Amino acid sequence: MSIFNVWAEHHSEDFIQMNPLMKVPVMKDGDFILGESVAILLYLCRKFRAPDHWYPADAQKCGLVDEYLAWQQANIKKHCAKVLWLKMVIPHFFKCPVPQKCLDEAITKLTQSLDMLEMKFLRNKLFLAGDQISLADLMALEDLIQVISVGFNVFKNWPWIKIWMGRVEATLGHELLEETRKSIMNLKNTPSLSSDTMRKFDIMKSMLF
Amino acid sequence: MSIFNVWAEHHSEDFIQMNPLMKVPVMKDGDFILGESVAILLYLCRKFRAPDHWYPADAQKCGLVDEYLAWQQANIKKHCAKVLWLKMVIPHFFKCPVPQKCLDEAITKLTQSLDMLEMKFLRNKLFLAGDQISLADLMALEDLIQVISVGFNVFKNWPWIKIWMGRVEATLGHELLEETRKSIMNLKNTPSLSSDTMRKFDIMKSMLF
Repeated sequence: MSIFNVWAEHHSEDFIQMNPLMKVPVMKDGDFILGESVAILLYLCRKFRAPDHWYPADAQKCGLVDEYLAWQQANIKKHCAKVLWLKMVIPHFFKCPVPQKCLDEAITKLTQSLDMLEMKFLRNKLFLAGDQISLADLMALEDLIQVISVGFNVFKNWPWIKIWMGRVEATLGHELLEETRKSIMNLKNTPSLSSDTMRKFDIMKSMLF
Repeated sequence: MSIFNVWAEHHSEDFIQMNPLMKVPVMKDGDFILGESVAILLYLCRKFRAPDHWYPADAQKCGLVDEYLAWQQANIKKHCAKVLWLKMVIPHFFKCPVPQKCLDEAITKLTQSLDMLEMKFLRNKLFLAGDQISLADLMALEDLIQVISVGFNVFKNWPWIKIWMGRVEATLGHELLEETRKSIMNLKNTPSLSSDTMRKFDIMKSMLF
């Protein structure tokens, strides 16, 4: 089984054959190809019979995980990714300046999403979908590390997120979290793109501005 | 069990207590409250042991349903909802003009999403996640009916979508589909909002423009 997660390669011909959406991550398990991080996590849970708390068999507990996983797609995940692109990916990989107005708008939307994350999913709860860690927490953690890595202070205005993140770190172990952090932090040490690859990205850039 | 789906009521105090995100639909099953349409559909499938094809037990088949359900949130679902708001909800309920530039941008993004829907999920397939109808098809159908109801011609430029929709209609039966269509088509016959309710919507409107 392979997970393709190096985004600079996702415009190669081979990759487009695998995922016409040209998005990472993509998983390949034998001949079976699957995109979308949520779908991949659910598949891995099922295939390797992960402990129940990650995606509970109980319909109500599972429903609360599904609720977060559905909500985050067009909220936390989308806005964290956008801030990462505008603050780091575009200036570093494309050597292309980002208009301040775009960045301000993206930060405003991220701020609204973080407010909702606290209000709806975190207040008075140990983890995002209940009293045990689940796939919901993994997804949120990975998204938030992206914006923390580009200097966005998630902890300053969102005390519940700070407490929750400490709890997730204590549960997963510092080492595993460091590994995740490092792979995102190291993005900016990757060389910028060739002019050929840049041309292929033009459509995606136009979708951001 | 109740499903709350009348959006004009979703800013009432009672509703906000149920779902602080102020979004419909919300399901109430005894004391258990669940938001997000995907999470609700999955819950109903589990609770009522729906036939396997809706959300297959097989990890790979299920993975393909999950892949669509994850992808559509920030794509088809988001852009269909936006076009519905800009073309009907805002002018009809708020009696507020929508700048042509906003509508043009929303249509462009919807067009890109429909291209991706065909290319990635529909070409050479009977249904979105394989050769049987699943929750993926239900979600897509409901989103597309929204934009069809406001005069957006989904069939003109997307022949695969047209063929697929005919197949879904034949599978679900014309009557059930008519019922879904009618509830969306009838939205514009609902009276416009009181000025008090309009004030509560101000934040949401600012997120759209």
